[in-house]
Amino acid sequence: MFDIFPIKGGLDNVEGFFSDGLNTGLKTSSIGEKQDGDLAFIRSDELCEVEALFTTNSFAAAPIKHFKEYENDFKTNFILINSKNANAMTGERGIEDIKEILSHVKDVTNPIMCSTGVIGYPLDKEKIISGIEKFDFNAKNSDNAARAILTTDKFKKELCLRVEPKEGKAFHIAGICKGAGMIEPSMATMLCFIVTDADIPRRDLREALVSVNEKTFNAISVDGDTSTNDTVMILANKKSKGYHKEGFKQALNKLMLHLAQEVVKDGEGASKLVGFHVKGAKHNEEAKKAAKALANSLLVKTAIFGEDPNWGRIASTIGASGVSCREENLKIFYDGVLVFSYENPTLNEQTEQKAIKIMQKPSYTITCDLGIAEGEFTAYGCDLGHEYVRVNADYRS
Amino acid sequence: MFDIFPIKGGLDNVEGFFSDGLNTGLKTSSIGEKQDGDLAFIRSDELCEVEALFTTNSFAAAPIKHFKEYENDFKTNFILINSKNANAMTGERGIEDIKEILSHVKDVTNPIMCSTGVIGYPLDKEKIISGIEKFDFNAKNSDNAARAILTTDKFKKELCLRVEPKEGKAFHIAGICKGAGMIEPSMATMLCFIVTDADIPRRDLREALVSVNEKTFNAISVDGDTSTNDTVMILANKKSKGYHKEGFKQALNKLMLHLAQEVVKDGEGASKLVGFHVKGAKHNEEAKKAAKALANSLLVKTAIFGEDPNWGRIASTIGASGVSCREENLKIFYDGVLVFSYENPTLNEQTEQKAIKIMQKPSYTITCDLGIAEGEFTAYGCDLGHEYVRVNADYRS
Repeated sequence: MFDIFPIKGGLDNVEGFFSDGLNTGLKTSSIGEKQDGDLAFIRSDELCEVEALFTTNSFAAAPIKHFKEYENDFKTNFILINSKNANAMTGERGIEDIKEILSHVKDVTNPIMCSTGVIGYPLDKEKIISGIEKFDFNAKNSDNAARAILTTDKFKKELCLRVEPKEGKAFHIAGICKGAGMIEPSMATMLCFIVTDADIPRRDLREALVSVNEKTFNAISVDGDTSTNDTVMILANKKSKGYHKEGFKQALNKLMLHLAQEVVKDGEGASKLVGFHVKGAKHNEEAKKAAKALANSLLVKTAIFGEDPNWGRIASTIGASGVSCREENLKIFYDGVLVFSYENPTLNEQTEQKAIKIMQKPSYTITCDLGIAEGEFTAYGCDLGHEYVRVNADYRS
Repeated sequence: MFDIFPIKGGLDNVEGFFSDGLNTGLKTSSIGEKQDGDLAFIRSDELCEVEALFTTNSFAAAPIKHFKEYENDFKTNFILINSKNANAMTGERGIEDIKEILSHVKDVTNPIMCSTGVIGYPLDKEKIISGIEKFDFNAKNSDNAARAILTTDKFKKELCLRVEPKEGKAFHIAGICKGAGMIEPSMATMLCFIVTDADIPRRDLREALVSVNEKTFNAISVDGDTSTNDTVMILANKKSKGYHKEGFKQALNKLMLHLAQEVVKDGEGASKLVGFHVKGAKHNEEAKKAAKALANSLLVKTAIFGEDPNWGRIASTIGASGVSCREENLKIFYDGVLVFSYENPTLNEQTEQKAIKIMQKPSYTITCDLGIAEGEFTAYGCDLGHEYVRVNADYRS
């Protein structure tokens, strides 16, 4: 038995971790209040176990290649993160730049660097090194770090959970995250850094990260694009001496689901967070395939933006997704409201009005029951409106 | 040897074929000049061989199910087409409605019906039957038919080609087509009707349609969605007594490529027609996968709209597409201009200006050389701008 509850202050609550963010001149215009930072660090005063999941994109960015140069099961106590430049498609030079930059950080073991931003430009090493020289590595400014990693995000994404097992010591798990464009079911330009002082065995750490990721970051979509840089990374320094396997896993799920949903809510131009719940599928894999197809369909996304209960687009997308389904067995619901069944295909005026009311909410669930077997999955997506086009037609400037 | 040249007048040139279109009240507001027709027919005075390719969507619409109730290799002399209502997800009733409607057309054999429009509403039989009663089935008004099948299309799509073999008689091949939204590499809400008076053996007809379709309608994308109704259908009445196998196939390719490109150009809100030419792939299938991924990527489509030579999005999409590729081997060109190679990743000012000039054109080609082997494919796509969102957020009203 255990209790899980959120506490204010992000990474700062986790024993032995330090973090901060500042502006080095990579971001030349302020995106919003306190969001002009472009360089952040996360440091632990003890060596940490580290586990990471990376993009499936074949053109993995330089930071990912650099990470993979370390030995299996290496330990680290330092992450440096810059925004504005992804250090992707930069070849050998990209990796050399990271090594040179990290050589300016004193007294760290196996330091890691992560980057997000535009593809195809070398890092501005001088600016980043000047930032390193300004940092106080004993600072606890999680808020600054959470803001410095943002690109086109409109708000910071940060959460800390405290787990209190009925027996044994309490421990913490906290994360910061950036998302916005290029978010896709296979984790796209999305960086997420999680730290914990739980006394967790490495085996459990890996297992929890992989299984929780599948139903959180791998279940979201903003635009179906997968970037060169996505990373979910967790550092465990074990300092609390507290651990509870199930408590840790539930807290990690809560943390990652929250951060993943915040990413969708902050999708470029997004105004709705929609859960696409597919059930009754042949198996979970098919449910996932159909749910992701819904989250990625332009016609579904624009109907959500238009608050139009055009269930025909939902049906058509399911039908096109390649999963086992039969018109006779399909049922479609907006929250609890049945809008399509074979016996009753046409939306009557009363049901349509109910569905429109639901679609006006900032968050709701579209459920498709395929009526075949027991497979189930929920994907999370958003609407696509004019703001998405505006942001993305002119992202680089 | 043979000559192929276009002649004015669409289906009207093809011997023994008649067609017309009119308004029956399904379309209540005129979309544009002469585009208020909502019912069309195509008739032949001789029985025709018919071949058709249909949507891959599991929820095939009632007209497709009705077609498939006929015996293999049936012959026909009549197609009725309505716009505004897709007769999809309408169950058994949808098929019964078609049978009842077609029973009002006199003296035809194995008549076919095709529909396009909104999903999930029963057909307005009375209006359609009243339209049938008004038709002159000996009319040659291809222009009316081409316009009556349109939905959100902005212009009609029609072409006739005359093939003159060096030896033997000349023959014709002509088509009309509708596209706009929901167009995808696997042929989405797209209807295309082709008629020919060539004296073509059935075996050749099938083979030509399948192989030409692969590189034309199956190579285009507006929004990656596949509808319940797509159909490419060809009727051959053999009346010209002329035939030339290679001449027919080349003419069919010319006709279908033209109509497919017209569909992309008229994609909802589209202002650019872009060819995505992938070469150097492991094999043709991988080239196709990568080319289609480019044509469907929101980030690529919005960059095209923004006329931003952000090749990083091209690279990232290739990397995410799951095909064999290596950063070291990749080259990206906008028309002839090399914008990325491993040796020279960063776009210099001069190259960028050249690329911007190309992107300002209404039509150009983005070439990705994967540098692995010899696989090659060209997909056709368009930009995604505000107009797409406007049209699709409020399609039903």
